Amino acid sequence: MSELIATYHVGDERNPEKKAEEIALGLTVGSWTSLPALEQEQLRKHKGRVVSAEQINDGIAEISIAYPAANFSADLPAILTTVFGKLSLDGKIRLLDLEFGEELRSFFPGPRFGIEGVRERLDVHDRPLLMSIFKGVLGKDIDFLSSQLKEQALGGIDIVKDDEILFENPLTPSGKRIQAGRRVLDEVFFETGHRTLYAVNLTGRTSELRDKAKRFAEDGADALLFNVFSYGLDVLQELREDDSIGLPIMAHPAFSGAIASSPVYGVSHPLLLGKLLRYAGADLALFPSPYGSVALERESALGIAEELTVESTFKKAFPVPSAGIHPGLVPLLISDFGIDSVINAGGGVHGHPGGASAGGRAFRQAIDAVLCGISLGEASESRQELKTALKLWGTPKKEAAK
Amino acid sequence: MSELIATYHVGDERNPEKKAEEIALGLTVGSWTSLPALEQEQLRKHKGRVVSAEQINDGIAEISIAYPAANFSADLPAILTTVFGKLSLDGKIRLLDLEFGEELRSFFPGPRFGIEGVRERLDVHDRPLLMSIFKGVLGKDIDFLSSQLKEQALGGIDIVKDDEILFENPLTPSGKRIQAGRRVLDEVFFETGHRTLYAVNLTGRTSELRDKAKRFAEDGADALLFNVFSYGLDVLQELREDDSIGLPIMAHPAFSGAIASSPVYGVSHPLLLGKLLRYAGADLALFPSPYGSVALERESALGIAEELTVESTFKKAFPVPSAGIHPGLVPLLISDFGIDSVINAGGGVHGHPGGASAGGRAFRQAIDAVLCGISLGEASESRQELKTALKLWGTPKKEAAK
Ligand SMILES: [Mg+2]
Ligand SMILES: [Mg+2]
Repeated sequence: MSELIATYHVGDERNPEKKAEEIALGLTVGSWTSLPALEQEQLRKHKGRVVSAEQINDGIAEISIAYPAANFSADLPAILTTVFGKLSLDGKIRLLDLEFGEELRSFFPGPRFGIEGVRERLDVHDRPLLMSIFKGVLGKDIDFLSSQLKEQALGGIDIVKDDEILFENPLTPSGKRIQAGRRVLDEVFFETGHRTLYAVNLTGRTSELRDKAKRFAEDGADALLFNVFSYGLDVLQELREDDSIGLPIMAHPAFSGAIASSPVYGVSHPLLLGKLLRYAGADLALFPSPYGSVALERESALGIAEELTVESTFKKAFPVPSAGIHPGLVPLLISDFGIDSVINAGGGVHGHPGGASAGGRAFRQAIDAVLCGISLGEASESRQELKTALKLWGTPKKEAAK
Repeated sequence: MSELIATYHVGDERNPEKKAEEIALGLTVGSWTSLPALEQEQLRKHKGRVVSAEQINDGIAEISIAYPAANFSADLPAILTTVFGKLSLDGKIRLLDLEFGEELRSFFPGPRFGIEGVRERLDVHDRPLLMSIFKGVLGKDIDFLSSQLKEQALGGIDIVKDDEILFENPLTPSGKRIQAGRRVLDEVFFETGHRTLYAVNLTGRTSELRDKAKRFAEDGADALLFNVFSYGLDVLQELREDDSIGLPIMAHPAFSGAIASSPVYGVSHPLLLGKLLRYAGADLALFPSPYGSVALERESALGIAEELTVESTFKKAFPVPSAGIHPGLVPLLISDFGIDSVINAGGGVHGHPGGASAGGRAFRQAIDAVLCGISLGEASESRQELKTALKLWGTPKKEAAK
């Protein structure tokens, strides 16, 4: 029978074994030793099991509990309620990891496209992808967005995403954005041979999202941006599972800090922004890089990327370390996150003195240099856009990471 | 034009005014003073505004920002993404409150029944309601649940709720539970004249919930229990808005600890478990009481209750302080949460030496005593069930609250 093993850190806990036993019983059959033998027989397949329980440091205990899959339906709301429902309210406790049994795992889809599928759409196979974000779009019209998109595409950027705070609005409703984006990106492809994907923000009421995403697909959208943590992980999974949508999904970490930022409470970054997003079906997952002003601890960021790309029955999802990224960080990004990652910049593209096109080219030059084993300084001698970028933003060292 | 004012606590912040200005611009129009006058004119209605920013103590700053409602669609996912999307990832920051402008508030339904509507269903108007929870139901059959329900109803309990970790399962699927529950509760009503409502756990995949809830209503369900934080607040709102469901909704706080427990990060208890649940349409909201083993700070618990019941354009929702409640706590509960609250017990009903019926009666006796101005000790002289309960669990004083 399939199990789900949940691992927790519990603070201020002097007796981990006792606490673990309380959880294993309290969240499953309630009691055990007091039950008659016949009832124990009936309930055995529902009884939680202590896998391990030990003090690790500073009064923090690490506890692993196996929950029988027979106790819940095979969906994330049931799973979260079982392993971190009432328990999330029980003092200093953080959910670190969930280990899904093979049968249970088979109920989850994983990414539809994954890293390989997204690469095929772009026909880019041998380097990190380069992504950028529309900037300053509130209150602007379609012409503004179109020309900003064109600039970014001409800079050699592979994916341009909507600002996650751009919702339906009279000036740039999603349908018009998709239509205009399609025209611009097809033009750029025709002119330059470079293919750029546009990820449109899927927003609105929960029950309208699937039909809306289908219309997006019919209208020629390339990919969906989705604020999954403002909705729910199961909503993401249903978008992924719907064959009539069939678009790559980019999960945005908006609101996830409310769940993952505390070291003591909530859900670990690798589980929330890595494993669960991948299981539910995100093709790309954004998270704060360890380098910017809004930064994750390096260990957390690397843990997320590991969960997104570790070998498993699911396709791999693209790690997209974000926030405060500029061309001088490309060597660090590739060293930390490898070729199979997306380099994502906002200000680092738009803030280039030569504009977004030059900003995109500076990043592409930095990526080329790293992959050829040339230092950025050396490459910048013959690459004007990169030179300008390095002059503005510098070339931070590994020690700069959080 | 309608605004949404968000208030935050920011840790380790030496310059609250500067931080506030960064938030107000960064999460709306991006920049301001550098913009040409014409563009400022265009963007004025989208620009965030610093309402206040001050150091309050220990390096914690309290910052209030007004976001123009023109910037987002009038739904909670858009609102959460706007006010605590990227910002939730930005270091030590907690979302304390959201103040909705009148126009914006008109897009939210509030409770369909509210306190008065639930009271009418029960025809109980002059005392706190009494609620209890099925116990130890995993792996048990319908007969077991039926007899446990009957015991509770015979004890004078007003509402019996499913265990939130009971999902669809072969032995006690939701349809059968509703059918059996209906039969039992109608029998008890016929025999005793006491009406008990049964709140059935609404679980499964997100897109199936509304149809399932409609079936529940058709099959004679009294109320829905919903693990809203494992799904999403907007999912709750859509259940509330669907006129073909039309059942009272009880919001369970499962998983909410992952969002609200840290004092430094996440979302405040009064906002998450009070205001937002009420706006989205919960008729009853469970939260940990300040007295049990799984306890909230008293201030947080009272803050939740205040948000659920303060005068507003919305109906009031029932506060349901829960966990570790026994009859000896009834004076404290009524003193803290008033008549318009629900006294909710699991072990405090089932653990009564005389069984769940006696457990229910002990609570009703305690409630009657408090409302008559008689001490529990005095009342217990002529009330056997209460006497037994007080002997077992005692009568904690206010100082016992967290
Ligand atoms: Mg953004
Ligand atoms: Mg329970």
